[in-house]
Amino acid sequence: MTANRKGRRPGNPGTADEILRSARDSFASLGYERASVRGIARAAGVDPALVLHYFGSKQHLFVAAVELPYDVGAEIGTRLATTPEAAGEGLVRMFLLAWDDENIQPTVIALLRAAATDDAAAGMLRQRFMAMIHPLLEGMEDAGFRASLCSSQMLGLGLTRYVLRLEPLASADHDTIVRAIGPTIQRYLTAAELT
Amino acid sequence: MTANRKGRRPGNPGTADEILRSARDSFASLGYERASVRGIARAAGVDPALVLHYFGSKQHLFVAAVELPYDVGAEIGTRLATTPEAAGEGLVRMFLLAWDDENIQPTVIALLRAAATDDAAAGMLRQRFMAMIHPLLEGMEDAGFRASLCSSQMLGLGLTRYVLRLEPLASADHDTIVRAIGPTIQRYLTAAELT
Repeated sequence: MTANRKGRRPGNPGTADEILRSARDSFASLGYERASVRGIARAAGVDPALVLHYFGSKQHLFVAAVELPYDVGAEIGTRLATTPEAAGEGLVRMFLLAWDDENIQPTVIALLRAAATDDAAAGMLRQRFMAMIHPLLEGMEDAGFRASLCSSQMLGLGLTRYVLRLEPLASADHDTIVRAIGPTIQRYLTAAELT
Repeated sequence: MTANRKGRRPGNPGTADEILRSARDSFASLGYERASVRGIARAAGVDPALVLHYFGSKQHLFVAAVELPYDVGAEIGTRLATTPEAAGEGLVRMFLLAWDDENIQPTVIALLRAAATDDAAAGMLRQRFMAMIHPLLEGMEDAGFRASLCSSQMLGLGLTRYVLRLEPLASADHDTIVRAIGPTIQRYLTAAELT
């Protein structure tokens, strides 16, 4: 895919964003496997070669498409350092804010759908979630186990609220969910006796 | 599917079990959408018409294939009635016992994969999980919300442990997981102040 690149129209500054938007929609509605570079290019109104020029491969395009627009890991780290007793509620609220953003929600659905059915996407989700949460717990006993417990509740919230659309959780407001699930995450993050 | 049934070979007593086993393998490895009645019949060594004779449709076959071999809802109900303070740990342990049974695990993976990508399967999972947990909470304030919170943690555990295979949760023993997640479920089931 490195040959034949010369002479192709590089696209205008908004082209990569157009492609990413189209990719998020395709991955969310079709799943990782059935979404195609060709279809994503068509929906974005560009040549498939331009998609590969910008992103290299379908897998790299997926990684770029599901990137959150801000560093949730760093935010959580700051909270744990400054107000550790509020870290659980803070983490739940941060994820809800991101996941209920209409620009981000298709991404979340795409990532969960892809991870459930595709090993490469599952590996990516594992790595990203653990990379986000694990370092915050450095030096704690059972840091890896704590991070995977947080992941189980947060990904379970993502799955039931956005993919399965399980009511009344799917329509609950942020404050209600933060009060219910925040203490769970707090315990997984900081409780002295967990196991 | 009620017409044309007469005259079909009814199969021997083990045939339906053979078909169910084959269906669980197919749904787990291929997902709901890509698994076919034809392929499931071929793997079971029977005619596709016999599969439809027994189960009526692909969707009904799926429902039958993902049925747990015992009534988890009734077991949880008994526990909540007799030892409500241990219901959370009991529920987590019951699901782990079922999900780590090598005959059941393909079913769980199949159900989660299908539900993540197929609306009909998602609807079924919603309905089954809520039908299992919701009646136990009858008369409690926020019974539906409590049931959906339990579902978010239990389905999140299923997703991370069996589908994403997130370590160290994927390899943790039952006692460790019960001690960590049991109190979460207990709080969702019985805590007076949840929201």
